[in-house]
Amino acid sequence: MEQFRNIGVIGREGNGVADTLRRLLDFLLLRELSVVLDEAVSELLPGHDLRVSSRRMIGEVCDLIIVVGGDGSLLGAARTLARHNAPVLGVNRGRLGFLTDISPDEIELQVGAVLDGHYRLEKRFLLDVEVIRDGQPVGKGDALNDVVLNSGTSGHMMEFELYVDGEFVYRQRSDGLIIATPTGSTAYSLSAGGPIMHPRLDAIVIVPMFPHTLSSRPIVIDGKSEIKMVVGKNNVVQPPVTCDGQLRITSQPGDSIYVRKKPHKMRLVHPLDHSFYASCRDKLGWGGQIGKEDEDV
Amino acid sequence: MEQFRNIGVIGREGNGVADTLRRLLDFLLLRELSVVLDEAVSELLPGHDLRVSSRRMIGEVCDLIIVVGGDGSLLGAARTLARHNAPVLGVNRGRLGFLTDISPDEIELQVGAVLDGHYRLEKRFLLDVEVIRDGQPVGKGDALNDVVLNSGTSGHMMEFELYVDGEFVYRQRSDGLIIATPTGSTAYSLSAGGPIMHPRLDAIVIVPMFPHTLSSRPIVIDGKSEIKMVVGKNNVVQPPVTCDGQLRITSQPGDSIYVRKKPHKMRLVHPLDHSFYASCRDKLGWGGQIGKEDEDV
Amino acid sequence: MEQFRNIGVIGREGNGVADTLRRLLDFLLLRELSVVLDEAVSELLPGHDLRVSSRRMIGEVCDLIIVVGGDGSLLGAARTLARHNAPVLGVNRGRLGFLTDISPDEIELQVGAVLDGHYRLEKRFLLDVEVIRDGQPVGKGDALNDVVLNSGTSGHMMEFELYVDGEFVYRQRSDGLIIATPTGSTAYSLSAGGPIMHPRLDAIVIVPMFPHTLSSRPIVIDGKSEIKMVVGKNNVVQPPVTCDGQLRITSQPGDSIYVRKKPHKMRLVHPLDHSFYASCRDKLGWGGQIGKEDEDV
Amino acid sequence: MEQFRNIGVIGREGNGVADTLRRLLDFLLLRELSVVLDEAVSELLPGHDLRVSSRRMIGEVCDLIIVVGGDGSLLGAARTLARHNAPVLGVNRGRLGFLTDISPDEIELQVGAVLDGHYRLEKRFLLDVEVIRDGQPVGKGDALNDVVLNSGTSGHMMEFELYVDGEFVYRQRSDGLIIATPTGSTAYSLSAGGPIMHPRLDAIVIVPMFPHTLSSRPIVIDGKSEIKMVVGKNNVVQPPVTCDGQLRITSQPGDSIYVRKKPHKMRLVHPLDHSFYASCRDKLGWGGQIGKEDEDV
Repeated sequence: MEQFRNIGVIGREGNGVADTLRRLLDFLLLRELSVVLDEAVSELLPGHDLRVSSRRMIGEVCDLIIVVGGDGSLLGAARTLARHNAPVLGVNRGRLGFLTDISPDEIELQVGAVLDGHYRLEKRFLLDVEVIRDGQPVGKGDALNDVVLNSGTSGHMMEFELYVDGEFVYRQRSDGLIIATPTGSTAYSLSAGGPIMHPRLDAIVIVPMFPHTLSSRPIVIDGKSEIKMVVGKNNVVQPPVTCDGQLRITSQPGDSIYVRKKPHKMRLVHPLDHSFYASCRDKLGWGGQIGKEDEDV
Repeated sequence: MEQFRNIGVIGREGNGVADTLRRLLDFLLLRELSVVLDEAVSELLPGHDLRVSSRRMIGEVCDLIIVVGGDGSLLGAARTLARHNAPVLGVNRGRLGFLTDISPDEIELQVGAVLDGHYRLEKRFLLDVEVIRDGQPVGKGDALNDVVLNSGTSGHMMEFELYVDGEFVYRQRSDGLIIATPTGSTAYSLSAGGPIMHPRLDAIVIVPMFPHTLSSRPIVIDGKSEIKMVVGKNNVVQPPVTCDGQLRITSQPGDSIYVRKKPHKMRLVHPLDHSFYASCRDKLGWGGQIGKEDEDV
Repeated sequence: MEQFRNIGVIGREGNGVADTLRRLLDFLLLRELSVVLDEAVSELLPGHDLRVSSRRMIGEVCDLIIVVGGDGSLLGAARTLARHNAPVLGVNRGRLGFLTDISPDEIELQVGAVLDGHYRLEKRFLLDVEVIRDGQPVGKGDALNDVVLNSGTSGHMMEFELYVDGEFVYRQRSDGLIIATPTGSTAYSLSAGGPIMHPRLDAIVIVPMFPHTLSSRPIVIDGKSEIKMVVGKNNVVQPPVTCDGQLRITSQPGDSIYVRKKPHKMRLVHPLDHSFYASCRDKLGWGGQIGKEDEDV
Repeated sequence: MEQFRNIGVIGREGNGVADTLRRLLDFLLLRELSVVLDEAVSELLPGHDLRVSSRRMIGEVCDLIIVVGGDGSLLGAARTLARHNAPVLGVNRGRLGFLTDISPDEIELQVGAVLDGHYRLEKRFLLDVEVIRDGQPVGKGDALNDVVLNSGTSGHMMEFELYVDGEFVYRQRSDGLIIATPTGSTAYSLSAGGPIMHPRLDAIVIVPMFPHTLSSRPIVIDGKSEIKMVVGKNNVVQPPVTCDGQLRITSQPGDSIYVRKKPHKMRLVHPLDHSFYASCRDKLGWGGQIGKEDEDV
């Protein structure tokens, strides 16, 4: 287990974030750790005297990065930090997320345990996106959850061709396509009818959005596959390509959009008692306690 | 590429099967190959003078096995032959299947090409099922497509617990659970809302059947996972466990049902022009020709 | 509003039912009402000195019938009582149902309000089923929730033709068909992908169960329609027809199964504060309080 | 049956439309009918000497209106013509639609039959939409198929409250909501998981688009219901409201959007052999011929 000495703290304004940050910093400083804040966190804590740095620099100099906020905050941080090797730990405010599984009132207990070496590391892969026009790259992005190609215009379907590893899959008329990692499989993709994929699975799911052909279904492919979408020449829309719902590239009719696994992975820190299925039960309302049966069925 | 000399021919009664068998045998004998028939095929061809053997023996002595029939015939053959190493080629009567992709009128052309060494081999894994009662195995089975635990009684839900790799997933009230391989992902599992999984993916999908909890969704897990279902003690039904819709084991309240990947894989022979996505387009009616766009969208 | 003087009490053994029954009877007798019990209730209350009668007779002589139990108990009672005109009130034990919306601890308050004339009446229609073989009826049934035609054999699809008002709809291979009333649209039909239908809607939904053709979807038709299913001659199964998951008729290949709205309706009593959508929010876990927004979206 | 003497011809540029128009006009003029063209049709037929009029005027003076084009063309025409009483007949170019069921090569036969009085009239209702801001109407529209409230921004969910007949249904985070008539139930709503509703049904379906709460499902309500959606105050998007995918109104956080059935209905003319279910089988690829069974199941 790694020993964490230099801790980066990253966050985003939001309900109760400042309180949680103060509690976290008090705890970290009590343990005499070196702490670096990103600019957003620094602004939330007027009067502090800690080091402030860009996220990129934090990724380089810290050996543990703590993100305070919701899953959305962690997504943003992950995209910036993936190229660095520093593990990431998520502290939520409010209800727990799939990625941020330490609650504010357990900071001392749970962050303490992680600092004492009681944790598990989980690698999560990201996706690289590239938009090619007339043979030239015109846009780039990356995503921990999902890449979404969408007509961008409510009430307008778009048309595109899908290729996987160079093989033609289909030409489709729909609102677009969601391409999700296992991490993203419990987010937008799930609302669109995609399956849940276990985080350790090396796979990508392709989910059609309101496809005109009713027999179009989510397709799960190997995580090492290269996905190409060609925007149909007759589209009247300029379909946006969105990464994690946060970053946006505009494509044009005729463009090719390539999606591939990123070489670097994010390393996510979990408390030892973390369970993916427990998160599912909790967040998706599956209910049902182990060993406790209902009446006769 | 292997040279095929000893050809086993396996089939099942059905529309047009006898005609297809005759055409296939004429072609194989013309090429002076050694041919062995299973008993079902032998009965369909009264007066023939070829060697007849059990499927098990055919698996041992042949270096290529040709199954004539639909995907259902190939499923049955696969379960018997998986422990042997002989590759399997499917010849369909009528419309093509996902597993049987040579049509009767192209026997000479396509089987000829395979015999000439122009083919691709694809490994497909099977599932092993074991039902345990009071610590003792009481039933066993295997499946190329899927293992289905079902209440077996129309209009009666059942209750069970699901564990993956020893971890509790959920307790569910539903009509049952479909556990499918990538091969089975385009069969029953697909009708139940499961995703399509590419045949090369090392993954298993778990699909709830009409779950009482609406947020229950298909879960895709690593192919090496061990799945355990514990039949609830309060069930009034004796839920059957079905393999490929063909083999059936009866479970009882309190039983544990284990599903794991089988150590041996089936080797499936495809013509060189075979494409999984083309089969999807054809069989699922996805339509949409490459490069041919509709009017403005 | 009707004045209720003769109260029938109907129930079924189950967790906490006896306690709830005693509390209910104490309250009814205190108000000096005439009370009649069905046999199941009578057995649950040894030593009582109240009148005991068959459900049928209770339907004839009572002007209000109170069902103690879950939605399942009310379904059974509804089928017996539909031909009589007496309104039905459901008292649940444990969690609330869609049909039984008085909880045990509010018996005095809520049943009292109903007896004081503060209630709403809602009419719910039932379905009549008839199985015809060689022109002769061979089985009959009725259902408040749903009629399910199912292959009855796990892992075996069945084949049938569907007609609505004499018009051919489709020939389908599937596990079967669910035909649900608005009342049943929040039960089994919903698990199978059917829509929620408001209780006041005069409509029937037809939901395919795991259809082989992926583009088969639920169809909502007028409540006055006549539905006919013809069991395919080549089926090897003897498909059961199940009413509300409780009553079962066995059909055979070649049989015609007719489903029509029953002439009599059940009259369901609701407290004045009952809301169908509130039940949906509560029972389906829709969450979301009115006027209380989350953070920025 | 009405006798049609004054025929309006309406269309939109598109593949093969001009040829179809010429064939139709030749036929109508041979029968010595009075023909009026809309401006779009007039431009497609340079050199013609027929009367040209606005669509509105055509609606007033004609007793039959023939729309040449796809279902999309008919949607546009229906919204303009609904207030008038003139029945509408759809002639498709290319493949048949749900609304336009006369194919170009059968113009003489099928339009002839209609003119001879051999046809059926079907009434289809439309929806009225009104956007209210601070008590004032700020936008209006109507739709034959559907009204769609959508975040309008790819990758951004929106939040809104839904009320039916003044009753609170839910507060939802999703991409938006589709509100469809029976006519629209086979269009966009179907892609989003909505049920098929028979054209004669007096009902409206409300379909959530990628809802955050997985248990949100389509809800079918009475056609006479009033639907109100209140755009959440915290939304950062300005959600467009789209009618039939053609007409767009922009709403703002805090706006109320009302949807109600329009008082006037469109009267759709069908050839006598028209069958709604046959259109479904054809257009949705249900396959399955009546009376023709597959092999044993």
